[in-house]
Amino acid sequence: MTATPAAFDAAMRLAIAEAQQVKGSTYPNPPVGAVILSSDGDVVGVGGTQPAGGPHAEVMALHEAGERAAGGTAVVTLEPCNHQGRTPPCVDALIQARVAAVVYAVTDPNPVASGGADRLRDNGIEVTPGVCADEVAGGPLREWLHKQRTGRPHVTWKYATSVDGRSAAADGSSQWITSDAARADLHVRRAACDAIVVGTGTVFIDDPTLTARLPGGGLAERQPLRVVVGKREISQEANVLNDDSRTMVIRTHDPNEVIQALSDRTDVLVEGGPTLAGAFLRAGVIDRILAYVGPILLGGPVTAVDDVGVPSIARALRWQYDGVDRIGPDLLLSLIPG
Amino acid sequence: MTATPAAFDAAMRLAIAEAQQVKGSTYPNPPVGAVILSSDGDVVGVGGTQPAGGPHAEVMALHEAGERAAGGTAVVTLEPCNHQGRTPPCVDALIQARVAAVVYAVTDPNPVASGGADRLRDNGIEVTPGVCADEVAGGPLREWLHKQRTGRPHVTWKYATSVDGRSAAADGSSQWITSDAARADLHVRRAACDAIVVGTGTVFIDDPTLTARLPGGGLAERQPLRVVVGKREISQEANVLNDDSRTMVIRTHDPNEVIQALSDRTDVLVEGGPTLAGAFLRAGVIDRILAYVGPILLGGPVTAVDDVGVPSIARALRWQYDGVDRIGPDLLLSLIPG
Repeated sequence: MTATPAAFDAAMRLAIAEAQQVKGSTYPNPPVGAVILSSDGDVVGVGGTQPAGGPHAEVMALHEAGERAAGGTAVVTLEPCNHQGRTPPCVDALIQARVAAVVYAVTDPNPVASGGADRLRDNGIEVTPGVCADEVAGGPLREWLHKQRTGRPHVTWKYATSVDGRSAAADGSSQWITSDAARADLHVRRAACDAIVVGTGTVFIDDPTLTARLPGGGLAERQPLRVVVGKREISQEANVLNDDSRTMVIRTHDPNEVIQALSDRTDVLVEGGPTLAGAFLRAGVIDRILAYVGPILLGGPVTAVDDVGVPSIARALRWQYDGVDRIGPDLLLSLIPG
Repeated sequence: MTATPAAFDAAMRLAIAEAQQVKGSTYPNPPVGAVILSSDGDVVGVGGTQPAGGPHAEVMALHEAGERAAGGTAVVTLEPCNHQGRTPPCVDALIQARVAAVVYAVTDPNPVASGGADRLRDNGIEVTPGVCADEVAGGPLREWLHKQRTGRPHVTWKYATSVDGRSAAADGSSQWITSDAARADLHVRRAACDAIVVGTGTVFIDDPTLTARLPGGGLAERQPLRVVVGKREISQEANVLNDDSRTMVIRTHDPNEVIQALSDRTDVLVEGGPTLAGAFLRAGVIDRILAYVGPILLGGPVTAVDDVGVPSIARALRWQYDGVDRIGPDLLLSLIPG
C-alpha cells in the first residue's frame, strides 16, 4: 500500500461528495460513498449506494476499478457491511477484489450489518477506521445515524431570516430575504430529504408548491413527501396539493404526532412559519436548525420565531453552532442542541 | 534585500497586531504598526504609534532595530509620513537608517502627510505598496480612514442578540445572552474606541457603568468617553456618571446632532437599545454593525431592533457581511453598508 494519509483524506472527501449525491435515494440503506485507490494511489473507482435492492457504494466503486483494485485501498464513508440483505455483504466483494487496505469514516452502529472491519482484518486486509469521521457523521450520514440511534426521523428546522430575526417586512412582504444562491442551496436539501413539513398557516399565506427545483426551474428528479400540519381545511386548489409530488395532511397540532406519522422516514425538513416552528421547538423535537441569514435589516412585527416557551433567560433554548457557511451574500448557520 | 513576499505578509501581520495594540491611544494620529526586517529577513524591530507628540511607529521600530536596520526592510501598515508635525517626517528616519526597502499596506490619503513613497524612491529605496491592504483598511485603520474620507467619526453599532433576534427573554432578563469570551472581546473594543453612546432608556433599564474592563474585572488603562443621549433626566446616582471615566449628556433625539457633538472623535461605539439603534439606522449614520450572536433561542416580545423605517421588503436596509468570526460559543458578525 503506497497511499499516504493525505491521499486517504482526499479520497474520503471524494467519497463524501459521492454520498451527498445519492442522499435521499437510498432508503432504507444509508447514503454511502466509496473510492478505490490503486496500489499506486490513483483514483480508479468511485461509487455511491444505489436505490434499495441495487448495489452498495463499495460494489459500484469496485466495478469501476476492475482489476486495478487488487493491492489497492478502498476508502468508504461507512464501515463495509457484513450482512446478507437484498445484496451480498460488501466485505465479500472487497475480499474477492483483493484490496490490501480499507479506510472508513464511521463504524456501523447497526448490530445486524456490523462486524465488517473484523472480517476484513481476519482476511489479512489492513483496516483504518475514523478517517474524516466528524465530516461524515455531521454530513451525509447525519440523519441516518440519528435514526439508527433513536429510532426516530431526524428533524431539521429551516428558516430564512434577516439579521434582526424577521421573516418578512412590516407589510408582510418577504420575497426575497435571501439570495438566489441560498434558495438554490435549499432546493438541493429539499431534493435530498424525505419529507417537507409546513403548517396550514404557511399554505394560506404563501401557497407554496414545496417541491425541489433545479436551478433552471424544472422539477428535481426526486421529490420529497409534502406534509401539511394543522386542523384548518386547506383549499383543494392549494399548490401544495398539485401533481408535482405526493402530499400528506395531518390534522393535529401536536409535533410528536407528526413525527410519529413520519416514523418510517429518516430526514424530515420543517419549513413552517413561526407558529409551527415554535410548537416543534417547545416540544423539543428539532434536531438541527438551519438558518439562512440575509445581510438585511427589516425591523417591525413579523419575527421568524414567536413563542418558544422561554419565560426568562435562565430557560433559554441552548444550542451550539456546528457550521457557519457563506452562501453567496448570505450566511447559513447550522445549530445542534447544546 | 533577501526577504520574500511571504516574509512581508508575516511581518505585516505582526505590524497589524502592533497597530491594534495602540488603537485608541494615538489621536489625532492614526494607529500604525511597523516592523523592521534585517537584511537577512529577521525581525529586529517592532513598534506602534505613541500618544500625540510621541514617536510614530516607524521610529519606535527603527529605535529597537538600531544598526540592524541598514540594508533591511521596513514593513508599515500606512505609507510613512512626509510631514513635519510635532515629530519629524518618518521618511527622514527611514532614509537615515539606510533601509533598502519599504513595504506598506495603505497609501496615506492625507494630502499634508502624503508623498512619503515618492521621497523614499527618490532616495533609492525600493517601495512596495498595497501589502495586506484590505486587512489594514478593514482593521486597525478602518475608523481613521473613514474620518479622513468623510470628515465624520466612524460609527459602529454593537449589539448582543439571540439567534432569533432577541435582546432579552420575555420577562426582560438578558444576563447573559452571550458568553464571557464575547464580553471580553467587547471590552477590548471599548478600550480602543473614543466614545460609547447609549440612550437614556438603557441607563434606566440596565444602569450600565459603560467602562472598558480587563478580564480580571479591573478598569482598562484607557477609558472612552461615555455619552448618554435623550431628553429624559437621568439620576445623579446612575453608574454611567461615576468617576471611572468622563460622561457627556446630549439632550437630543437626533442622531446627526449626536455625531456633530462627537465630531472631534474618530471611533464611536453605539451600544444603545432598540430605540436608539433604530433612530441611528433610520438616519443612515451607522458605518458598521457588530452583532454578537449567542447560539440560543428566546422568542417573545423583546427584539434587539424595533422600527428601522422599513415598510416593505423592497426598502430593506441592505448590508453586506465583511466578517464572520467565532468567539467562544458565539458568533461575531460584522456588516458594512451593502
